[in-house]
Amino acid sequence: MVPHLVTALTGPINELEQRILDSMPAIERWFRLEWMEHTPVFYTSVDVRNAGFKLAPVDSDLFPSAWNNLSESMLPLAVQAAMAAIEKICPEARNLLIIPENNERNSFYLSSLAQLRRIFRMAGLNVRIGSISADLKKSVTLNLPEGDSITLEPVLRTKGRLGLKDFDPCTILLNNEMVAGVPGILEDLQGQYLLPPMHASGSVRSRATYFKIYEEVAKRFGKLIGIDHWLINPMHDTCSDVDLHTEEGLAVLTVRVDALLAKIRKKYKEYGIKEKPFVVVKADHLGRNAGLLTVRDSKDIAALAGKSPALLALRPGPHACLLQEGVMTNERINDAVAEPVVYLMDRYVVGGFYRVHADRGVDEDLSAPGSHYVPLAFADGMQLPQPALRAGASAPNRFYMYGVIARLAMLASSYELEATDPDAERYD
Amino acid sequence: MVPHLVTALTGPINELEQRILDSMPAIERWFRLEWMEHTPVFYTSVDVRNAGFKLAPVDSDLFPSAWNNLSESMLPLAVQAAMAAIEKICPEARNLLIIPENNERNSFYLSSLAQLRRIFRMAGLNVRIGSISADLKKSVTLNLPEGDSITLEPVLRTKGRLGLKDFDPCTILLNNEMVAGVPGILEDLQGQYLLPPMHASGSVRSRATYFKIYEEVAKRFGKLIGIDHWLINPMHDTCSDVDLHTEEGLAVLTVRVDALLAKIRKKYKEYGIKEKPFVVVKADHLGRNAGLLTVRDSKDIAALAGKSPALLALRPGPHACLLQEGVMTNERINDAVAEPVVYLMDRYVVGGFYRVHADRGVDEDLSAPGSHYVPLAFADGMQLPQPALRAGASAPNRFYMYGVIARLAMLASSYELEATDPDAERYD
Repeated sequence: MVPHLVTALTGPINELEQRILDSMPAIERWFRLEWMEHTPVFYTSVDVRNAGFKLAPVDSDLFPSAWNNLSESMLPLAVQAAMAAIEKICPEARNLLIIPENNERNSFYLSSLAQLRRIFRMAGLNVRIGSISADLKKSVTLNLPEGDSITLEPVLRTKGRLGLKDFDPCTILLNNEMVAGVPGILEDLQGQYLLPPMHASGSVRSRATYFKIYEEVAKRFGKLIGIDHWLINPMHDTCSDVDLHTEEGLAVLTVRVDALLAKIRKKYKEYGIKEKPFVVVKADHLGRNAGLLTVRDSKDIAALAGKSPALLALRPGPHACLLQEGVMTNERINDAVAEPVVYLMDRYVVGGFYRVHADRGVDEDLSAPGSHYVPLAFADGMQLPQPALRAGASAPNRFYMYGVIARLAMLASSYELEATDPDAERYD
Repeated sequence: MVPHLVTALTGPINELEQRILDSMPAIERWFRLEWMEHTPVFYTSVDVRNAGFKLAPVDSDLFPSAWNNLSESMLPLAVQAAMAAIEKICPEARNLLIIPENNERNSFYLSSLAQLRRIFRMAGLNVRIGSISADLKKSVTLNLPEGDSITLEPVLRTKGRLGLKDFDPCTILLNNEMVAGVPGILEDLQGQYLLPPMHASGSVRSRATYFKIYEEVAKRFGKLIGIDHWLINPMHDTCSDVDLHTEEGLAVLTVRVDALLAKIRKKYKEYGIKEKPFVVVKADHLGRNAGLLTVRDSKDIAALAGKSPALLALRPGPHACLLQEGVMTNERINDAVAEPVVYLMDRYVVGGFYRVHADRGVDEDLSAPGSHYVPLAFADGMQLPQPALRAGASAPNRFYMYGVIARLAMLASSYELEATDPDAERYD
């Protein structure tokens, strides 16, 4: 089930969208069966791109922030989902410790943290926020613009447990991607649940691994509803051990980008798509601040690499990169290019927003300075039959397909965490 | 977790309410632990009465109708809860058959049915409506005022399964209380889930059994949060085998009512309550159309019985009755007396409404001709901090206590269905 939110889509429903809407009972059943075998990740946000002819996730975050961007009317859904998640993991929970990013003191991040705290408080837990930053020696209370405040407390590590002064949590919710590596203070905890687990950290996850798994999920799903999985899957390739600070590295990248562009061109031809293909190059290791490079012509790579702070943020030396088929977005809000970001808690879609950037093109990264956010509201169409429609018919839930794609992306994360779990017992 | 809905309460928060609000983490944990051991009933609606000094369920319905009275903004919560319930019971479900009341053709009931169908469709199921009425020989489509329509189809019984033409459901949702008894067509089904189970039928349930179990639940809960369980529990007594059509029967009832009134008076004195106690007499067997008799003075019983169509609806002969402490309601909407009705799906509170009656008193039954319904909306206080409050503080969720009491009532139903399950294995 996906709540009916208002999307920016106004045109006629295309073939892919109609296929997804028509297959709803089969799709929901498929997901239910998946969750019998696999554990949903605790929470995630998924960046989705809708090119019209194709709809795909381009990135996901297992430590989502920006919860304050969700519309207030979505809060009860998030709380109900949080309640279901907690009940499954640790029904006897009383206390929840949230571990935030270390150096995020901007009010936007803190407002997101306050919203997360609110969700879990409303789910019936005592919630406190414990920083693992070595710089935080004593509690500090930070006021938020909307009148709320956040108290950051230094965590205390006893032998087998992590907590705060007079606060022993049974569950620890990480909202810290730990891109610099998992600190020892989180290791070897006894009887405490770490959510998500440490191997979800941006310091160890690989985008290539993730998108390979996503591709397998997309293939199976494509078979289920009878579509070419390319319509929901961005093609990708990987480069390992290339140093983009060297001419040799750039040459390798150029060859690989050319090959991927050729594959996209072939697909575009097959589907009669007139757009110009492009490739997005990302560092293989995840990390909230990792940048990306958009390449429309491989001849431009050297010049682009010189200008892109993102790739240059990779230190000299060999690195792995993900080359991803660029998925343009054909959505706009007030003429500005927009892409939906969908939030999930446990297996439930609990809301989303549009990331909007007035100065960027349909084939560019919108997650850049100057972007703003428009919460997705519940559809009015849910509340009143629309006069233009056949009497009694409700407007179709056009947000549904985003919820489906976001859940496929989340399912891939579940598979990924199962596959990369260092503690998993192996029977193969 | 209970969604934050607007209640009619405007006065200061009293002691009981404050205690419930303060105990939220303990309460939520207690419920989570209960659901580890017990299965929530599939869906229910609970009539709650708030006297200010005391807050208690006075009746509950295991085949709730009036879903159309819930505000539209609650729909996603109901859908998410339905999804969780279905996933637990029958994850491989594709088709759901709803069995409605047999002779309810009024547009209000049909609109409720349409809403129920919508909830399960949005949860991802193929939903059709199959009547078990012997009068329905072929499909009939009934138009609803809001433009929607309901198609009632005659059920088909094959050897071990119940379905419709070309429709084999794995789950059958009963929205028919079967007060006249469970029809044979529902018996001995193979591999189909009947929700709720047949022994939830109004033809076999006993109010006395239910309220006895509720009292035990209330006692344990009272201990948990440190209150006299009377504050959440209406005292009760039972009369078995009395014929209210005879003077002897009325004499027995008079004695028992007097005894209960004396117990209530004692409690009122203990708490310094100046109100006039009253007792409500109900038929022991549940049934949507069962009436009740409000008794303020046992001397009036003979006269009241003569006037009350409710008790006269009991055929001459011995019957069992429940005598329940009357709980007045101190809530009003536009000066009319009101009582909240809370809806649950699985373990989740998914909405509610006020039943309002302009011509009835605070100690009278509001479920009578002339009543109307006011959906409970989400609180604005959830969306914006209120100026009158301390900066950063949100308005307390005064609906929370109703959600707690309704869940206690639902938990008692779970215990009841476990205790009365004819197929349960007994180890005692």
